[in-house]
Amino acid sequence: MDDVVNAFVPGPRVRIPGRAGGPLSGLSFAAKDLFDVAGVPTGGGNHDWAKFNPVPERHGWAVQTLLDAGAELVGKTITDEVSLGILGENAFDGTPTNTAAPDRVPGGSSSGSAAAVAAGICDTALGTDTGGSVRVPASFCGLYGIRPTHGRVDTTGMLPQAPSSDTTGWFARDAQTFAKVSTVMLGEAPGALPTRLIVAVDAFGFADPEVAEALKPMVERLGRIVGDVREEIMAPQGLSVWARAQRTLQPVEAWATFQPWVESANPRMAFSVVAALLTGAQMPAADRAWAAMMRLEARGRLRHLLPPGTILCLPTTPFPAPLRGLSSPVLQVVKDRISCLCAQGGLTGSPQVSLPGATVNGAPVGLSIIGGRGTDAALIAVAQAMEAAA
Amino acid sequence: MDDVVNAFVPGPRVRIPGRAGGPLSGLSFAAKDLFDVAGVPTGGGNHDWAKFNPVPERHGWAVQTLLDAGAELVGKTITDEVSLGILGENAFDGTPTNTAAPDRVPGGSSSGSAAAVAAGICDTALGTDTGGSVRVPASFCGLYGIRPTHGRVDTTGMLPQAPSSDTTGWFARDAQTFAKVSTVMLGEAPGALPTRLIVAVDAFGFADPEVAEALKPMVERLGRIVGDVREEIMAPQGLSVWARAQRTLQPVEAWATFQPWVESANPRMAFSVVAALLTGAQMPAADRAWAAMMRLEARGRLRHLLPPGTILCLPTTPFPAPLRGLSSPVLQVVKDRISCLCAQGGLTGSPQVSLPGATVNGAPVGLSIIGGRGTDAALIAVAQAMEAAA
Repeated sequence: MDDVVNAFVPGPRVRIPGRAGGPLSGLSFAAKDLFDVAGVPTGGGNHDWAKFNPVPERHGWAVQTLLDAGAELVGKTITDEVSLGILGENAFDGTPTNTAAPDRVPGGSSSGSAAAVAAGICDTALGTDTGGSVRVPASFCGLYGIRPTHGRVDTTGMLPQAPSSDTTGWFARDAQTFAKVSTVMLGEAPGALPTRLIVAVDAFGFADPEVAEALKPMVERLGRIVGDVREEIMAPQGLSVWARAQRTLQPVEAWATFQPWVESANPRMAFSVVAALLTGAQMPAADRAWAAMMRLEARGRLRHLLPPGTILCLPTTPFPAPLRGLSSPVLQVVKDRISCLCAQGGLTGSPQVSLPGATVNGAPVGLSIIGGRGTDAALIAVAQAMEAAA
Repeated sequence: MDDVVNAFVPGPRVRIPGRAGGPLSGLSFAAKDLFDVAGVPTGGGNHDWAKFNPVPERHGWAVQTLLDAGAELVGKTITDEVSLGILGENAFDGTPTNTAAPDRVPGGSSSGSAAAVAAGICDTALGTDTGGSVRVPASFCGLYGIRPTHGRVDTTGMLPQAPSSDTTGWFARDAQTFAKVSTVMLGEAPGALPTRLIVAVDAFGFADPEVAEALKPMVERLGRIVGDVREEIMAPQGLSVWARAQRTLQPVEAWATFQPWVESANPRMAFSVVAALLTGAQMPAADRAWAAMMRLEARGRLRHLLPPGTILCLPTTPFPAPLRGLSSPVLQVVKDRISCLCAQGGLTGSPQVSLPGATVNGAPVGLSIIGGRGTDAALIAVAQAMEAAA
């Protein structure tokens, strides 16, 4: 299919057939340009990355796994530069079109993967999620998207950002495809449904009132599926305090990841990306030490809230996709607000799935479900049940 | 002539004949791509500058002045991005070749202008000097180059960086051409020779010993021309203290200049350029306040040292041009050392001319002369006398 939504990286489109007879035979997938494909330079969303890094000789684990399961690779997709971005506007390759809301950003950093799936160009697509890079575009484009339990899905051959938060995720338009791909990627079929639901009142209160209102029918449906429902604060220390901890730890690790490259290559990058990297370079040790402790508190809180059989729900993003091309002072507040609802992912490593089904002024916004570490398959089962009950 | 040294900006070469019968008839010049040429986008060394700034409708003052005097414009030259660089390595347009030392950088930010003159492609070329951007490439390429008294040469139609330090300068291969162009640009013929010379012992001590040694015959020749010679410390507070003050004030002003652009356009820039800009954005007020006082001290010191008839000499740079493509940690020390010998220009506004004539291991290094504010024409006369006595 033609790249009518500017989802794929410039240059000839890489295509690799899947192994015949696998469980994903007949499905197509795209891979964010952070995943290695043997013989193809990994671009990383920056035009000076491939110049200073070798062409991969092997497929990344996730790419190999989908090919082995029978899915066909149909291209590599645009990403925010070295995954440092949450809106999907790449200064080098442009902004993929959000078919669900064409005047708005697709979300990032897995922007092209989400845009390609949303446009129907492929059935699923690989993304990465460190601070929200699968969840946010899933919410903005109206897709199913998962950030698995940290450490569960092998990230070999995926360009890292902040390893203690990095995960490999994926998107689909429907829950059945989502479940098929998830079964392969997780090595586990959809699990038993949870029986208790926590509605995160702090997160719903933090979202735009229109978003909380639009998600209400989905929350009610979720409640009927799960049974027992109660309201709780997710982050007693503050969503903004959790976000501050994540936005302390993540840039420090990102700086450690990219410092050797930027200091040897002096690459061309968007202004905002360098500014983000340098916050990590300049982070005081006292702030880093505090953030590491807050991470432990957040993990303890989610362990307490989410025993086996319990899930939590919250708006994936505080608003639907913002308009394309906003300028910097406005953008900063937009990014800061998004991070307040996404920080728990990188901070605690808990799995999270964003479910489509609501809109505000015609633009999608997702409802997220979070479970305890390792309960990824139960979240997939919830996605199926939600679609079946819709 | 072909651009055999990668001195000119990409795209079609702009050419404008000079007015017939002027004092510079028969001479050709190039203009650093920070100077406006009517109808031609000013590139500023960054591929996202012209997109967000209007195409100029008038020539910059310096361009108009040279055209009116009869010189022919033969092209616009590569510059470090928005003049933030001292070595002449532009991540977008490449590094102009230093014909005097092809394995070394040309110096910047007026890299293409220096390279074009050094290669004989044109007779003179316009540059800008805020923190050393004419003096350094003059030293590295073996040219005459001037940073005039701050405020003396009209900077209308020149892309600014730090207005309280910005100047328009120019290069030439020989002192006679240098004097002809200077007479037009300054509106004043070469003046009377000074009669007293101060040798800045702190600056000679700070340069590589090989540089001090290589410059000794030039200093002796200068002493014979001027007459009375004595040794003095130029910067009693420390060359590094003066440099610190300049590198506090200059980035703060540069940030004020470029903040509206970077915040609205999020331009692609080399990593190092963003890092430099952000040092200005993040400068504590206490540091800025101190630097403004140190600037007053430095101005007072040069007024004391340089009464009418006295000039001072120092190595233009502490070493000849470094090799091309050095990596970041080494580069930082290189840039820091250069700024220790260049800071007095932006800090005090005094005029300075770099004279060619010495080499270290075959690579050029310049001897600089500095006079009191407004004594530019006397420095030009010294350049002529030095060449005549060579």
